[in-house]
Amino acid sequence: MSQLENSGYKGSALKALSKADCDVGDILRITSKDKTYEGILIPRSELGDGTVVIVKMKSGYNIGIHITAEVKIEKIGKGAKPAFASPPLPKQNPSLPHVVIMSTGGTIASRVDYRTGAVRSAISASDLYGVVPELSDVAKVDTEIVFSLYSENITQKHWKELAETIAKRIETGVDGIVIAHGTDTMAYTSAALSFALQNLPVPVIIVGAQRSSDRPSSDAATNLIGAVKAAGEGSFAEVGLAMHESVSDIAIIIHRGTKVRKCHTSRRDTFKSINGFPIAKVRDQQVTMLTNSYQHRDPSKKLVLKPDFSEKVALVKFYPGLDPAIIDWYVNKGVRGILLEGSGLGHVSKCCFDSIKNAVAKGVLVALASQCIWG
Amino acid sequence: MSQLENSGYKGSALKALSKADCDVGDILRITSKDKTYEGILIPRSELGDGTVVIVKMKSGYNIGIHITAEVKIEKIGKGAKPAFASPPLPKQNPSLPHVVIMSTGGTIASRVDYRTGAVRSAISASDLYGVVPELSDVAKVDTEIVFSLYSENITQKHWKELAETIAKRIETGVDGIVIAHGTDTMAYTSAALSFALQNLPVPVIIVGAQRSSDRPSSDAATNLIGAVKAAGEGSFAEVGLAMHESVSDIAIIIHRGTKVRKCHTSRRDTFKSINGFPIAKVRDQQVTMLTNSYQHRDPSKKLVLKPDFSEKVALVKFYPGLDPAIIDWYVNKGVRGILLEGSGLGHVSKCCFDSIKNAVAKGVLVALASQCIWG
Repeated sequence: MSQLENSGYKGSALKALSKADCDVGDILRITSKDKTYEGILIPRSELGDGTVVIVKMKSGYNIGIHITAEVKIEKIGKGAKPAFASPPLPKQNPSLPHVVIMSTGGTIASRVDYRTGAVRSAISASDLYGVVPELSDVAKVDTEIVFSLYSENITQKHWKELAETIAKRIETGVDGIVIAHGTDTMAYTSAALSFALQNLPVPVIIVGAQRSSDRPSSDAATNLIGAVKAAGEGSFAEVGLAMHESVSDIAIIIHRGTKVRKCHTSRRDTFKSINGFPIAKVRDQQVTMLTNSYQHRDPSKKLVLKPDFSEKVALVKFYPGLDPAIIDWYVNKGVRGILLEGSGLGHVSKCCFDSIKNAVAKGVLVALASQCIWG
Repeated sequence: MSQLENSGYKGSALKALSKADCDVGDILRITSKDKTYEGILIPRSELGDGTVVIVKMKSGYNIGIHITAEVKIEKIGKGAKPAFASPPLPKQNPSLPHVVIMSTGGTIASRVDYRTGAVRSAISASDLYGVVPELSDVAKVDTEIVFSLYSENITQKHWKELAETIAKRIETGVDGIVIAHGTDTMAYTSAALSFALQNLPVPVIIVGAQRSSDRPSSDAATNLIGAVKAAGEGSFAEVGLAMHESVSDIAIIIHRGTKVRKCHTSRRDTFKSINGFPIAKVRDQQVTMLTNSYQHRDPSKKLVLKPDFSEKVALVKFYPGLDPAIIDWYVNKGVRGILLEGSGLGHVSKCCFDSIKNAVAKGVLVALASQCIWG
């Protein structure tokens, strides 16, 4: 069955692809005026314009080609489905820690998509072992697909679902949980889970990747192995976030879930601990604690689950010229809290004062934070 | 004349201060249950509650004391007005570069306030030489008060006024301009001036301070001297932002006006160049360029002034759970542009797509930026 119609293509690009009998996952040769491109046809954003075709080239990078009447599209190879045959599952070593890897989507779980062209940003146990066979030396791994979303689409209700799913697994007695997550809002989710999962008996590690595993510089495998190692063996029982410590592959660093931020759009060490230090490091197959002050692993502890988050909270970033009516608008919409991301120590213009007074008078909690990163 | 009534005090605090015949600037002894505080009575925010009195202690730090019936307030010294007598102006050295220092308010221009207690966040030439006599060795300095605002209150219309004032001075033939500015929105103003003042013949340096000059760790004098040095002698002609390079007083760094951000609430090296490098450094009385790629000082160049900024532009920071109706609200208010500060590379939830499409259909320019800092 053709996947082309659900692939996001439309307009002249869709017509040209249909005419050349190309499906998502096929290998194409596209000849423009002066250049020739070869690559695998991949799905594209629904928001894209209707004149561009996107192929993933051998280099691993994607290129968009503007389709005009002069451009020639040829199918030079048929997409293998699945292009990626799962190897037999390695034997589980029962003496290793038992770790559950939950998938929520994102780059870390997107390998299979781009190889086969299928829109399937989720991992199964077989896929995982195929991609990262080393995992079987680190832990006895179960996997579970919780949802399959680009992380910018994750909201309060997903935090709830995720927290409840984690709680259920922890109650059955696992040694640790790993959450594969898109990096975009990973720090928001790690903070939310830190509040939702209190008195944890074991570690809960959220992990992502900046580059998908079909690119030579992928950080997906090293991050995942580091996260599973920390979840299975770490002596702490907190929500952590595992990513590259630096641009090299030497160490995976575990940040505290509430004290971390995505700081760079593309670097693999994009996550940094803010106003605090990372909690642990995974290097040379060893998990080392970087602080003495942490919640200790203790399977006898009883998890306290607080999964509910109100959607009636607004974040307003202050800037010169901000219209204070935005505060009134949120108050009239019935929000229960407004976080103002102010300048400096958390300042807003005096033109906002009346609106803030009105909000407070109506029982809305108004909090101030700083748009400086540190301090 | 008593300044107390315009000092921001109200309620029981105002009553207690009046009863003890205290004015702003007076030295008070306040005895609470178990503690005694001595310090200068300073004005306070109008938003503060009516039961707190604020004094600046000898340490330079301010303390707020909750006034109850049990608390005793005594005036133990009368505020000297002016507490700070301007020394005679040093002789201007006509062979030095001619630099105009314009004041807009902020910590850097706030010394006189806290010493005398007067609400006067502006500098005069005499004040300046009193505070930083070294300036007379660096440049022939004129000063001008443009306005006197905490920088969180600076808006597009102030950018316009400031740009026009700078342009007038440049047309009379000065060697450089320094703008003393609150640090909170200093990077917004430096970016705005970079667009408003094109084809500059001389440098325009915006400068602030993280700690007022009555505190031992003040950076006001070193930053100001560095800024004046760079404005008078720097070989570049761009809008720059001068602040401490590190926590030490050794060097002042000049960031490019469009490539800088306040990154820490309190550190003196809070400003960092983002996605670019600083343009110059002032150290040991020398201005050193840090790049070969810059606009050169050239008094024959004719400034192009573009001082108008629309107020019909909105910045919306994306976060999990953002209500897309905020985009519709701005469109209905008639904004001409919306900047979405998205996650990762500049992503927003798909629940925003319809609102974005509607905005674009109505002719609103919708731009995406990243809430990551670098990349």
